[in-house]
Formats: sequence, C-alpha cells, structure tokens
Amino acid sequence: MPDPQTRSRSAHALASSAVPAWDAEADVLVVGLGAAGASAAIEAASAGARVLVLERASGGGGTTAVSDGMMYFGGGTALQRACGFEDSVEEMEKYLLASCGPEPDAVRIRAYCEQSAGHYDWLVEQGVPFKAEFYPERMLSPGEEGLTYSGNELVHPFREQARPAPRAHMPQKEGQAGALLMQKLIAAAERAGAQIRSDTLCEALVQDPEGRVVGVHAVVAGEDRHFRALRGVVLCAGGFINDREMVKQYAPELRRARFKAATEGDDGRGIRMGIGAGGAAIRMHMGSVSLPFYPPKSLMRGIFVNATGQRFMPEDVYQGRAGELALLHQDGRVFLILDDECFERPVFAGGEIHAGETIAELEREIGLPPGSLESTVALYNRHAERGEDPVFHKAPEYLKPLTASPFGAIDLSWDKAIYAAFTLGGLATNVRAEVLDGDGAPVPGLFAAGRTAASISSPGYSSGTSIGEATLFGRIAGRNAAGA
Amino acid sequence: MPDPQTRSRSAHALASSAVPAWDAEADVLVVGLGAAGASAAIEAASAGARVLVLERASGGGGTTAVSDGMMYFGGGTALQRACGFEDSVEEMEKYLLASCGPEPDAVRIRAYCEQSAGHYDWLVEQGVPFKAEFYPERMLSPGEEGLTYSGNELVHPFREQARPAPRAHMPQKEGQAGALLMQKLIAAAERAGAQIRSDTLCEALVQDPEGRVVGVHAVVAGEDRHFRALRGVVLCAGGFINDREMVKQYAPELRRARFKAATEGDDGRGIRMGIGAGGAAIRMHMGSVSLPFYPPKSLMRGIFVNATGQRFMPEDVYQGRAGELALLHQDGRVFLILDDECFERPVFAGGEIHAGETIAELEREIGLPPGSLESTVALYNRHAERGEDPVFHKAPEYLKPLTASPFGAIDLSWDKAIYAAFTLGGLATNVRAEVLDGDGAPVPGLFAAGRTAASISSPGYSSGTSIGEATLFGRIAGRNAAGA
Repeated sequence: MPDPQTRSRSAHALASSAVPAWDAEADVLVVGLGAAGASAAIEAASAGARVLVLERASGGGGTTAVSDGMMYFGGGTALQRACGFEDSVEEMEKYLLASCGPEPDAVRIRAYCEQSAGHYDWLVEQGVPFKAEFYPERMLSPGEEGLTYSGNELVHPFREQARPAPRAHMPQKEGQAGALLMQKLIAAAERAGAQIRSDTLCEALVQDPEGRVVGVHAVVAGEDRHFRALRGVVLCAGGFINDREMVKQYAPELRRARFKAATEGDDGRGIRMGIGAGGAAIRMHMGSVSLPFYPPKSLMRGIFVNATGQRFMPEDVYQGRAGELALLHQDGRVFLILDDECFERPVFAGGEIHAGETIAELEREIGLPPGSLESTVALYNRHAERGEDPVFHKAPEYLKPLTASPFGAIDLSWDKAIYAAFTLGGLATNVRAEVLDGDGAPVPGLFAAGRTAASISSPGYSSGTSIGEATLFGRIAGRNAAGA
Repeated sequence: MPDPQTRSRSAHALASSAVPAWDAEADVLVVGLGAAGASAAIEAASAGARVLVLERASGGGGTTAVSDGMMYFGGGTALQRACGFEDSVEEMEKYLLASCGPEPDAVRIRAYCEQSAGHYDWLVEQGVPFKAEFYPERMLSPGEEGLTYSGNELVHPFREQARPAPRAHMPQKEGQAGALLMQKLIAAAERAGAQIRSDTLCEALVQDPEGRVVGVHAVVAGEDRHFRALRGVVLCAGGFINDREMVKQYAPELRRARFKAATEGDDGRGIRMGIGAGGAAIRMHMGSVSLPFYPPKSLMRGIFVNATGQRFMPEDVYQGRAGELALLHQDGRVFLILDDECFERPVFAGGEIHAGETIAELEREIGLPPGSLESTVALYNRHAERGEDPVFHKAPEYLKPLTASPFGAIDLSWDKAIYAAFTLGGLATNVRAEVLDGDGAPVPGLFAAGRTAASISSPGYSSGTSIGEATLFGRIAGRNAAGA
C-alpha cells in the first residue's frame, strides 16, 4: 500500500461530529458527473429532490465523454425493431449469463435486461439521438449508424447458447459519440434542476454516529468544504485503472495493459470513499481488456498462437474477449500468423511484424519451439481446406488454409501491442443501487453506479455494458436516493 | 450478497459507546487459535502483555491442525544445513519473487526470507521437533523426514531463475504433522501465560470514536460478550473458502474446487471483521488450487492436454501449480494422456479412466477435436525420442515417447477429480502485521496474520508458505500488539 502521506484519506469516513460547518446542503449529493452521475441527477431532480453534483474536473463528462458512447441494450428496443432485428429479454439474459461468467450476478443481469428497452426510450426522451440504421461490420462504425454487434453473440460457443442480436446502441454522430451523449445528459440534468459544482474534488464521505452517510468532505481550491446530504449520496466517480497502487493490490493482472480506457479521474477515489464508509469492494481483480487486432477484418483469417505455438481461441472473437484471453490466460505472449493472401497491418493494435518464406522459417524467426507452429498450421490447414474448424469453431467465412508464401507473424504481445483496459470491480450494490457492506446489508444513505460499482461483467465484457449500466443504475440510484 | 438476516454482522464494527459492559479485558486479544494465533499469543505474552485468545471451537488448532504441518523456510536454516543443502536469503527471495507473481509484495517477501532461518530456530525452541533427514520424492513423505521440496524450484522456468533448494520443513511425525505442530505451539502459548477461551465465537470488532480498535464483540453460548483490548487485537481467524457467498463475490474462479483445504472456521469472519473496522481486503480472488495428480510419479511421464487436445504445462510441475493452471486457465477441462508403460491410477486425484488401442481412438473416446491429440502426441514423441521437450521443458527423467498401446486418458476435469483449494486473499497488512485501510494507513490497534491477511503468494503457491507466514507474521503481530 502507498505511503499514507502521499495519498488522499478517502478510505476513512469523516465523523459528522468532526464537520466544522456545512458549506452547502442538498437532498441528494452526486459525486462525479459522468454518465452515471448525470443520469442519477436527472432522476433525483425529476423526483423533486434538490440535487447537487460535485465534479472534480472543470467540466463534466467523465470517461464516457472520451469514449465511443456505445450502450449495450436489448430485449427488443425501439432501435432494434426499427432496424429489423428481433430480440427478447430472455435471449439477452441468456447471452449475458453465458458471457459474464463465472458466477455472474443473475439478479442484476435480470434487472438490466428487463429494463433495457424502456431505458433506451428514456435516453431518447432526454434528447439523445439514434439513427435507425444497422452497421454490419465487426468493428466500430465511423459513420452515424445506430446499431451494431459489440460482443461475442456470433462467436462460438455463445452463438449456440443464445439467439444472436445486435445490441450495441450508438448515438447519432460520426466518429466517437461519447461527448455528444454526455452533452445531452448534462443538459437534461440542468433542465431537471440539478446544480453542478465543478473543480470540486471529493475526499471522503461523512457518517453520523449510527453509520448513516450524511455528506461529503471535498476540497475546492485547496480549501476544505463540507456538503450535507439530507437524503443520500450517490457515488459515480469512475473506476480505478489509473491508480497504480490499487491496480497493484487488487488487480495485478491488469498491469501490463499499456493503454487505459479511462480518464485521470478513474483513480479509485469513489471506491475508496465507499470502503471508508463500510462498503464492500468485490471482484476487484476483474477488468475489461481489449486487443483491437482488427480492423482490417482480413486479419481474422489468420490464426492466433501463444508462446508454445498453439492456438487458443477462434480468431473471429470479439476484441474484448481476445484481449482477456491473450493477456490473462496466455501470459500476454501471442502472435497472429498470416499468409500472403490475408496479411495486412492492424489499424489500431500496433505490434511487431516478422516474415518467413516457410512456416518453419517463420517459427524460427519469432522464436517458437521447433515444430510447434508447423504442427499447428498443418492441423488448421487440414480442416480449413474443408471449410471446417472443429478445434475452435471459427465461422466458415474466416477460414482459409494458410499456404501462400511468404508468411507473416504480427507479434501482439503485451509489450509490443495496444491492450486497452479498465476495471470492472467496485462497490457491491443491489438492484436498488444501494451500496452493501461485507455482510450484504445496505450502508444507509449510500448509493453507487457506473464503474464505482462492481459490474455485471466479471469478466466477459461486451462493449456498451459500462455506459449501459452507468445510465440505468445511475437513474435507479438517483431515484432511490431522492426517495430515501 | 447474502440476506443480511442470515449472516453475522461482522462487517460492521460496534461503537465502543454501544458496549453495555466489558466482560473481561486483556492487553492483547487474539481472535483464533490456529498457527498464527498461537504464535501471536506466545510472543505477546513473552513480551509481558496479558493475552486472551478467543477461539470458536472447543479446542484450538485451526486449519493447521488438520494439515500436513509443512512450513516453507530457507535462506540456510539449521535443518537445511544439517541435511547438506546450501541456500541463501537471496536465492529464496529470487524464487519467491519469480513464483509469487504477478506484482508480488516484494517488501513482505524480503521480510519473510530474511527472518526465515531465525524463525525456524524459534520453532525448535518452542518444542517443535524436526528430523534432519531429506525426503527426495516429489510428494509428501509418509515418514518422519524433516526436509523436502514443496514448490516449483526444480521446474522450468523457475529452476533457471533461482538456485533450487528444498525448503519444505516438516515436524517429525509419521503422516500428517499439523496436529503435533499445533499441540506444541498451544502448549508454548500456555506456558508463556496466555489465557485461552474456547467456544467463543467472535462477531465484530469494537472501535472507539477515533477509530481505534479497542475490543471484540463475541457470542458465548448464545449470549453477547464484550472483551476489551487495552493495547491491540490480532485477527487470526483463517481464510474464507468455506463461505459460499464470499467465494461467489470475491473469488468466483475457485467455486469449482470441490475439496476445501480448510476447516469450517474458514468462513471469512476475521476478514469481514477487519473490513468492518476499515481494513482493506486485497487480492481476494486469489487461491491455492492443488491437483494431486501424482503420486505415483510415473504419471509425470504422460502429457496433460486441455479440451482442444493441446499441452499447457510441463508435467513435472508442482501439484499446486498444476491445479492453478488447469482450473483457472484451462477452464478446468484437462486429461492426462498415458501409454501402457506409464499408466497407473492416481493415488489421490480420482478422475475418470478411458482407453484406446490407438491415439486416434483415444481422441474420439474422450471427445477431443479430430486430429488434435494425434498432432500433439506426434510432436511430443518426436522430441521425447531425443530426450528433449523444447515446448514445455519437462525434465529429461520424465520424458518418454508415448508409443506403447493401449493408450489411456485420465479425465482430471474439475467435475471428475479432486481439486483442493483455499483462499490467499485477505486483509492488507504491512511487515509489522498492522492492518491497513484503503489508503494504506494502519487501522489503529488492529493486526492480522495467517490466512486472514493477504498472502505473499498471489498466486503461485508453494506449500508451506501458509503456515510459514502464519507463524512468522503471527509472532510479529503479537509482539507489535503487545508494544502498541
């Protein structure tokens, strides 16, 4: 653990008796103005509560504002129907239960699926635009299309476990749509009457002698400030991928992902504040790890091998699962093997390129054990010639024997390529978004949403569940805090 | 999280103002009389403190008493020297840094290695007998020998990273030696003047308004009891593998290990009590997972394959690493492939036996993808004929081509075989055994040792570090609590 001198004292709730005076008060305090905080503010204010949002940066937005803005919804949303896709709560639930393992939070997943279609309508009501057009490629659209696939719905073994449907909902905007999404949500929060204080760095929660959370201690321009919450506090302060000490202690496997899909605000402060008030932090080791080895799609026609020259996944897998399998289960040492017909450079992933006239030469060139890659390619080619992949079940459209010399290998090991990570662990919450202690009882007056709360994905991330959970459970937290 | 009605309220510290009356007081309270608690009691009492040990069972012993009593020590202990082995603090440290990854706690490992040889002498002083005889087999001795190998010191890649030395120290006793070890330690604690109260189930810590831990709330014969600690409380209450809810929330990957290397006392209560007083619980997902596929040793001459028919480790690996790799990285679906010359039944691991006249027939019989096992065996045999294993670097003495029909496969998947697990995560502590909060600052008056504290092994377990850490850091906790 770090030198306590150099760290905030977030993990220690302040006793209400130690508060010199309240600088301001509200019914509901929201810590952090990202997707979760804005959604909480909208709902709490709409329920009639006086809402004060405390944001560390000079403007709101959080990590969502620098993201693609993708949200994982289903069960037959208006957008899915407008694009001609059938989906049901049950099929969405089956997919998430299969992919969010092991021991997925079935109660939370059920709530997420059941409320998904209605929640999409709410976002439209808040002014978030979506274009009813499907983007069929297996990568992020550069255009304005509203619907695409973002997970492993089409990939073995998930395609056999639940009827696939595209569930990634994207606001209508060319390129990254997260900033637009946050602009709309913040505007809606202001319209609903929520007050926003920026440049306000929250340090710790304030608890009364009975353990109820009654306020927040913050620092504004170097001065201590104390904000009172008459009904509740909602923690929406992001994850912890940018706190080196927390990653080391809780999620050491994520240390090798060089790119953090986060802002500097994702320093774990919200989670530490919750711990300091008695909240339990669970599944703290889990993270989303993405390896964006495609586009271009032709790279899915190659084969991935590990340091012993063996395949370990179907290469049409979703980028999020590819990163997880490569970094967490193959020690981050992986190569993409290609032949002259499918070789291209990855657009985003980087990597180090090697070539050989034969597979044996390539094997030597990249230092794989003698005969290992030859053996793997021979088995793969034998099946691919018949359009089959009985070993990893890659879809037929990406199968072709690797026979056209010269051959190439892209070293996509953790120290050569871009792995993008963020944390999925956080405070334990129930479907009311109440923070739970280690015995499973709510901490009175405390709510959490967004990456400050433990995710339904643990692991097995499908892109869009983060902003999906943030906005849905943010709303629930705001509503329940207002009614508390 | 569980229904709060059915669970203890350990995760919620009791305010000292809510204590009706103190039923007893001591300078140092020790929660749990296993190896850590007994060691803490000996040292605290020897330092002049009045010590009261609270134990939930009718007699002490904890999980150590039902274990083999193995302790991982090195750096040139008297026993290592008497058996003719050289070792140094540096080599021991190199091995642990390499095997206890990722992001091992280097400061704690350094302390453990530096104090190891002196700590062994202390155990001898407490009356624990050791016989100066080396047991060369790669499995637990049925006899009285005192020294053996318990980790991966001789296995690739560790054998290249640190000079191997046997470091598993076993008390002199035929069969399981844990009960003898606990008998000696408890007798020493009583001689030192510690008082022991059995049948006392601790529920929660008591904290004063400044956050200092000043006592323990316990239940004795259904009645609430409050014990006051004038100097400090030491939590030595074991791990949490036997608390289904905690395993589900924190360490879902361990759920498939059917055998718990633990007693029912390992229900996480000590960790929850620490969390309730502001302690941080770290690396809670990590566990030791053992797959005791040998003895007999001839089984190391086979090859392990996963569900895609591929090898994934050198088969001379330590049982603790085999279990970890198989369960956590191969989804718990593994087969040990043997030929007529090396086939035997595992003594402990169980498993389901299959046979085939050819490798192809065996492959079909156990449902591996067509050609996968044939390809793997062909590559292995080609190298084994030359006494080499360039793919996984198994030691030459276990290498032989698998060519003698009939062939056998032992299905050692998680639902067919014995995987033995216990938890390695727990409260964050420093080298003074003080419990740390989420900011890395000590929780005043609170100490922890044994499996209630997060281990140096995270993962990468070498048998004996549990009781080794428990006794060493238990002593440190007792000494510092007495001086606090």
